[in-house]
Amino acid sequence: MEEIHTIDHLRRKIKTARQAGKLIGFVPTMGYLHAGHMSLVERACRENDFVVVSIFVNPTQFGPNEDYDAYPRDEKHDLAILRKAGVDLAFMPTADLMYPDGYSTYVVQEGQLTATLCGRSRPGHFRGVTTIVTKLFNMVQPDRAYFGQKDAQQVAVIRQMVRDLNFDIQVVVCPIVREPDGLAMSSRNAYLDHSQRSDALVLSKALFEARAAIEAGQRDADKVRALVRERISSVPAVQIDYVEIVDADSLKPLKRLQGRVLIAVAAKIGLPRLIDNIQLTLD
Amino acid sequence: MEEIHTIDHLRRKIKTARQAGKLIGFVPTMGYLHAGHMSLVERACRENDFVVVSIFVNPTQFGPNEDYDAYPRDEKHDLAILRKAGVDLAFMPTADLMYPDGYSTYVVQEGQLTATLCGRSRPGHFRGVTTIVTKLFNMVQPDRAYFGQKDAQQVAVIRQMVRDLNFDIQVVVCPIVREPDGLAMSSRNAYLDHSQRSDALVLSKALFEARAAIEAGQRDADKVRALVRERISSVPAVQIDYVEIVDADSLKPLKRLQGRVLIAVAAKIGLPRLIDNIQLTLD
Repeated sequence: MEEIHTIDHLRRKIKTARQAGKLIGFVPTMGYLHAGHMSLVERACRENDFVVVSIFVNPTQFGPNEDYDAYPRDEKHDLAILRKAGVDLAFMPTADLMYPDGYSTYVVQEGQLTATLCGRSRPGHFRGVTTIVTKLFNMVQPDRAYFGQKDAQQVAVIRQMVRDLNFDIQVVVCPIVREPDGLAMSSRNAYLDHSQRSDALVLSKALFEARAAIEAGQRDADKVRALVRERISSVPAVQIDYVEIVDADSLKPLKRLQGRVLIAVAAKIGLPRLIDNIQLTLD
Repeated sequence: MEEIHTIDHLRRKIKTARQAGKLIGFVPTMGYLHAGHMSLVERACRENDFVVVSIFVNPTQFGPNEDYDAYPRDEKHDLAILRKAGVDLAFMPTADLMYPDGYSTYVVQEGQLTATLCGRSRPGHFRGVTTIVTKLFNMVQPDRAYFGQKDAQQVAVIRQMVRDLNFDIQVVVCPIVREPDGLAMSSRNAYLDHSQRSDALVLSKALFEARAAIEAGQRDADKVRALVRERISSVPAVQIDYVEIVDADSLKPLKRLQGRVLIAVAAKIGLPRLIDNIQLTLD
């Protein structure tokens, strides 16, 4: 595996791979890699001839009062496990390289997809995501790009962006990877102390209970939402940001559960803010 | 030359050309082609192995009270001269193909480049330009893309966008082509009646006088601007939108003329709005 720090170097290596007829897979990450990331990386390695992973904590997707500076970083560990997984290139640009002086172009998405859920609590977040993903897509020009279902709204936004801006890239979405006790893997879990970590379990537990209720026949979104809210509220240290039940593609709120249904939650456990979701396909 | 109406067809043809190792040149146009456009097309044909020209009157770069519906169109003539010039593909998408229902992603540029000159009088115009050019770049993935210096601000905006979003595309800028009497070629010249066309000549005349004054040693931007304004104002039917003297890359106003200097004018001759400019490089 080569560690790449400049755009020119990245382009040269990718050009060589492409000229050799290789299919290129790309996994954009913010580093501090866990088993969730690695499920994307492993799938990319299985499905492509040449795999690029970027590690970049993207400043433009953090709000002014968010955790950009505190975001956990461990380059050495990241590189070791990427190497072991068989990745070809690890791209680790600096913020100055990605956003040089005078930087002024952004990709924005209007409407429901970015206005709802995390878009409401994190204004500007998705503008940062669509902008950095566009930049990375243009640098890597992959055949396939891998994203985690954990960031369900990001998936919907990226899919729409790829369609709207006509990127010739296949977006592959991989399931959420969970700890044995149900906690969705997240780099931000590193923020949790012992008691917060135990409190945080209520998010996945509430979602699993919602799934059980739906599997038992419940189709009323309000009732399912009430069930999830009530369950999460039973842990006083957990502050709900939102509990939403929406169509998984349009992210429009559902009254009656039907089609591809996304149940998404965001909550603060002390300072750390976590998200989780489940997705179901119903007749 | 093949006439292409779908994105899939376009991609297939370009893929074949690229696999054959051909260099791809691209000229995006809104059609109603004149000698200005053809200078770009001819240069693209000289410098590349495979040339794509798009003809698309892009609705998102027109304001609600602008001339989208009235914009002149003559597909038959356009195709005839493109064929004669040796173009490989003419891409003519519909607005529905480019902006299907639910379309919601835009490329925006913040700051001076889009706030000044035409950006002030045409809010949203450059958002439409950067969005459609991004879409076309992603469809064609050319090695080189050709733009006319006539749209000097568009050139600055596209250059910045290519840099910011890391498009791996060389932007080639071609000089303004003028009628023998000095009028800058423009599809919008078709709007001018006989007397308006004669009035419109004052724009290039004023710019040529400014150049003469600068070549004679004048370096005071205010004095040059006053000269241009005065000359244009001598024709009562011509209503100045702006006369600006700016750095050609940053579009920041200059006090003293130095470096790459752009003198840009926009004016209404009755209803039609025309632009023109000259660019000089000074010590």
